[in-house]
Amino acid sequence: MKKNIPPATIRRLPIYLQTLRELYLRGVRIISSAELGDILEITPEQLRKDLTFFGNFGRKGIGYNVEELSESIEKILGLKNQWRVAIVGAGHLGTALANYEIFPELGFETVAIFDIDERVIGSEINGVKVYDFEKINSVAKRKNFDIGIVAVPPENVREVCDALVDAEVKGIWNFAPVKPEVPPEIIVVNENLSVGLGALSFRLAQQ
Amino acid sequence: MKKNIPPATIRRLPIYLQTLRELYLRGVRIISSAELGDILEITPEQLRKDLTFFGNFGRKGIGYNVEELSESIEKILGLKNQWRVAIVGAGHLGTALANYEIFPELGFETVAIFDIDERVIGSEINGVKVYDFEKINSVAKRKNFDIGIVAVPPENVREVCDALVDAEVKGIWNFAPVKPEVPPEIIVVNENLSVGLGALSFRLAQQ
Repeated sequence: MKKNIPPATIRRLPIYLQTLRELYLRGVRIISSAELGDILEITPEQLRKDLTFFGNFGRKGIGYNVEELSESIEKILGLKNQWRVAIVGAGHLGTALANYEIFPELGFETVAIFDIDERVIGSEINGVKVYDFEKINSVAKRKNFDIGIVAVPPENVREVCDALVDAEVKGIWNFAPVKPEVPPEIIVVNENLSVGLGALSFRLAQQ
Repeated sequence: MKKNIPPATIRRLPIYLQTLRELYLRGVRIISSAELGDILEITPEQLRKDLTFFGNFGRKGIGYNVEELSESIEKILGLKNQWRVAIVGAGHLGTALANYEIFPELGFETVAIFDIDERVIGSEINGVKVYDFEKINSVAKRKNFDIGIVAVPPENVREVCDALVDAEVKGIWNFAPVKPEVPPEIIVVNENLSVGLGALSFRLAQQ
């Protein structure tokens, strides 16, 4: 069943989850699709359609149970799995990602950071040690990470991805503006920052 | 016409553009939708459908003219406009964004960076001066930026967006995990990094 879920729906789920959690912290226990759609700036129809891919949430005339819905989305997204993450590249981007508060809240634990710069190797970023990239294989055996985040310049992407594959990661989240080539069983998500800027430019140009 | 273009299509356009430019640099002048779809990892049908929103590109049995198609996408995305950008927040994320090579290539020129930290005010990042955030209004008058990038902690988003609105930006690109409240005429694109991580987690959990 899951295979036919539109990618756009998958992209919206983490946003739904974040909003539901904020609502829960503010004491909201039940919310209608109209109210929730309003906060999320999407139509209630779209919201209901997205959620029907995963089962029957909410009750007619009452609304969604905020806690139940949050937990269901967490489960759907695999966020109950407590993924172990390694960040490759301790530059500004890697450091920003290591400090990003939302990741641990979503169930991603950064267990190692790698760099080639001797000035940062051995230091800690947000409590996580920076290791020598050359030693990624032995560190991987001890730290046992599932996901590699690639935060290196484009010219180093190939070498870094090869090393992550050798280190037996299951998934790669790539921030460099080049597509890594990896075996098909490795799941790659490319984060392309120019997409957001392109969307903004498009909307500005329409005005 | 442009108003009915699906957001998913808009999101794909910057990726098409980047790929077309790379192809052009590698000497490719004509490409079929099958070949281009293959590189982009989307179906030729989807690609053709996306491009029909903007007119008739390509010729049956021949393919797309790489240069013409690049230029058309640039125009569609408003990238010929040479947007002037200010980054608020000279921390790791702001610094990473100021150094991101793709932005100037897409037609975005960073003209000012703002921070509140006296240790960085007056310094330069990638050739762009860091100004005191308190002076954003007077700097805006001289530097005349259209877009503000918000790279500050969540608790400062409201203050920063208010200042950007006062400085008469047309658009805001927000990296903080809270939604800014701004007047409706200001275009906001929220960059939510947990979306990519959520998508990766979802696909890993399905395996």
